[in-house]
Amino acid sequence: MNNFSFYNPTKIIFGKDSIDKIGVELSCAKYERVLLLAGKGSIKKNGVYNQVTKSLQANGVSFVEMWGVQPNPTLEKVRETIIFARENKVDAILAVGGGSVIDSAKAISVGFYLEDIWQFMQRKEVAKQALPLYTVLTMSATGSEMNSGFVLTNTETKQKWGSGSNLLFPKVSIIDPAAQFSLPWEQTVNGGLDAIAHILEYYFVDSQAIITRAVNKALMKTVIAMLDRLQTNPKDYSARANLAWSATMALNGISGIGMNGGDWACHTIEHALSAIHPQISHGAGLGVIFPAWIEYMALKDPERFADWFEAWGETNTITGLIAMRNKIRDWGSPVSLRDLCIHKDDLPTIVDKIMEFPVIGGMSKFKREDIEAILLLAY
Amino acid sequence: MNNFSFYNPTKIIFGKDSIDKIGVELSCAKYERVLLLAGKGSIKKNGVYNQVTKSLQANGVSFVEMWGVQPNPTLEKVRETIIFARENKVDAILAVGGGSVIDSAKAISVGFYLEDIWQFMQRKEVAKQALPLYTVLTMSATGSEMNSGFVLTNTETKQKWGSGSNLLFPKVSIIDPAAQFSLPWEQTVNGGLDAIAHILEYYFVDSQAIITRAVNKALMKTVIAMLDRLQTNPKDYSARANLAWSATMALNGISGIGMNGGDWACHTIEHALSAIHPQISHGAGLGVIFPAWIEYMALKDPERFADWFEAWGETNTITGLIAMRNKIRDWGSPVSLRDLCIHKDDLPTIVDKIMEFPVIGGMSKFKREDIEAILLLAY
Repeated sequence: MNNFSFYNPTKIIFGKDSIDKIGVELSCAKYERVLLLAGKGSIKKNGVYNQVTKSLQANGVSFVEMWGVQPNPTLEKVRETIIFARENKVDAILAVGGGSVIDSAKAISVGFYLEDIWQFMQRKEVAKQALPLYTVLTMSATGSEMNSGFVLTNTETKQKWGSGSNLLFPKVSIIDPAAQFSLPWEQTVNGGLDAIAHILEYYFVDSQAIITRAVNKALMKTVIAMLDRLQTNPKDYSARANLAWSATMALNGISGIGMNGGDWACHTIEHALSAIHPQISHGAGLGVIFPAWIEYMALKDPERFADWFEAWGETNTITGLIAMRNKIRDWGSPVSLRDLCIHKDDLPTIVDKIMEFPVIGGMSKFKREDIEAILLLAY
Repeated sequence: MNNFSFYNPTKIIFGKDSIDKIGVELSCAKYERVLLLAGKGSIKKNGVYNQVTKSLQANGVSFVEMWGVQPNPTLEKVRETIIFARENKVDAILAVGGGSVIDSAKAISVGFYLEDIWQFMQRKEVAKQALPLYTVLTMSATGSEMNSGFVLTNTETKQKWGSGSNLLFPKVSIIDPAAQFSLPWEQTVNGGLDAIAHILEYYFVDSQAIITRAVNKALMKTVIAMLDRLQTNPKDYSARANLAWSATMALNGISGIGMNGGDWACHTIEHALSAIHPQISHGAGLGVIFPAWIEYMALKDPERFADWFEAWGETNTITGLIAMRNKIRDWGSPVSLRDLCIHKDDLPTIVDKIMEFPVIGGMSKFKREDIEAILLLAY
């Protein structure tokens, strides 16, 4: 097992009616004014906004609101909100939404004290402080509610980059699985695929990290089984709860124990893909890319991947690949770049964009021909 | 899945040569004088003491030493060390040892600011602060390196009680699996049995906590497999590392997610047992008690326990019980109270001691006849 450090101070409050507790958490910390950050309005439809604001008001928490964070959240919106946050002299942020809202909140939280947030993303500026961050999660997928990383898209330069800081662990994250009852099926699947992709990024790095691989297999099997249950009954509380916690665990550090930071080639490829084609949701993009990555890697080294396919009900590469893609198709999710409406002519531009990243992959550093091969397998 | 909260701010530094990092961690925090707490001297033999003090000296960390913490650590020693710590005006504690040393350090850390630590254990005094705690782990077993609880024995009243506080999470815990190469086999097994018992205390509470049960099964299977490997080769680094992290995970909160705080009947029974017979080590006592507890529970509700026995290579109660006890016997550990040199005449006294606890068990509150039946099965 590789050496590792683990540190994760986020407090999780999980379960039915847990959203009501956000007011007490914020009022105990005695903030002057909190920025409530949200997306495009789904939290008004599903009642979460009402639960949150009722709890804030009942506990005398003063807040201002900023709406409109979109999937694949943008640098532009973050910059706009940093100005808004400074003008309103907020001293904490409450993100109410999914990974995009929480990621934006992290960028705002650290950007609040910086010259320019994109400079920070480019490692040209260093963060020394950040606004304290609280979250109410409404879609389980990215794990952002319990880690210190975030991803942002610069629409001008068409760059989707990741960054992070130990300053950015949320102080408190509230996860009420029942708040996800009304999620469209597509978003539920995208979340599950994102979680599976996080597990994958760590899965193959070190076969000596036996306990991590066993935990990760347990996480993956649970995600698969819970997606199957939710496809039949989206209001299955137990399935929502187990999917939610599995997705959090897939990227809170536990899944990466002894795995040397992980591989991350699939995420790099997907980030380039959705930077150029922002209509592609992150989870759906990953659901196309990671089977192609596995196909490319497993054909070279089948033994290493047998254990992975076991979680999909098979043990050999050929039947495993078919079973995995069939399952994703059964969930109604794209399984090829064609399904994502990418033309073959677009591939070179995507390869160019991917090659802009200084490093692609952790286990083996991919070259242009590796990327081309994977995209062809994904096509 | 039951509602839950999770919070664990301990930073873990894990791996080969990680002990060298303790000096930097302490010097960065700028303490005036650190109390180095240790056991009976094994760290002088295995080189850990040298590694630690070299790192402290190289980083200019001033420290005083207190030796002599014993297994089933005593209130008396804790009280003595609190006086010593006050006299020496220490402002942090570094525990170098196994669970007994770390548990004692927690009691000293919180007791430093209290009228009397036993009053705190009796819930008659409330803690408002504690000395910051650092640990270098030399025996994986209790999980104390990454949780906020501790157990202490009052030899006068023959009471072995548990307590805890959010103030008592170690700031930093260092785990170098190689430091455990020289552990006697018996202690390695005791540590593994303790970890298995922690997993057991959560395992059966809620079958709807699917992900927790799957993670816990992964932990248990790993502990069993690594013990088997270490019985052949005690210097198998990968086995030491995977056993170490599994034992930490068995009681750092992750194994209890959605499990309503766990059951803890086995621990209560063992605590009474080793309070009266302090020569019994905690792990060995648990290795006798938990199979008896499972026998008592599984015969009433076999289906609930089939999944547990699967980790021991069987799926039905009868063969599972035999396989589990055979495995423990193969590891050279006691499987009955007789093996622990308890006489049948001693049982009533032990039952009386157990009945002193206000509550025994979480899933069903045990009465005297339940305890008598379990002790007979353990006999």
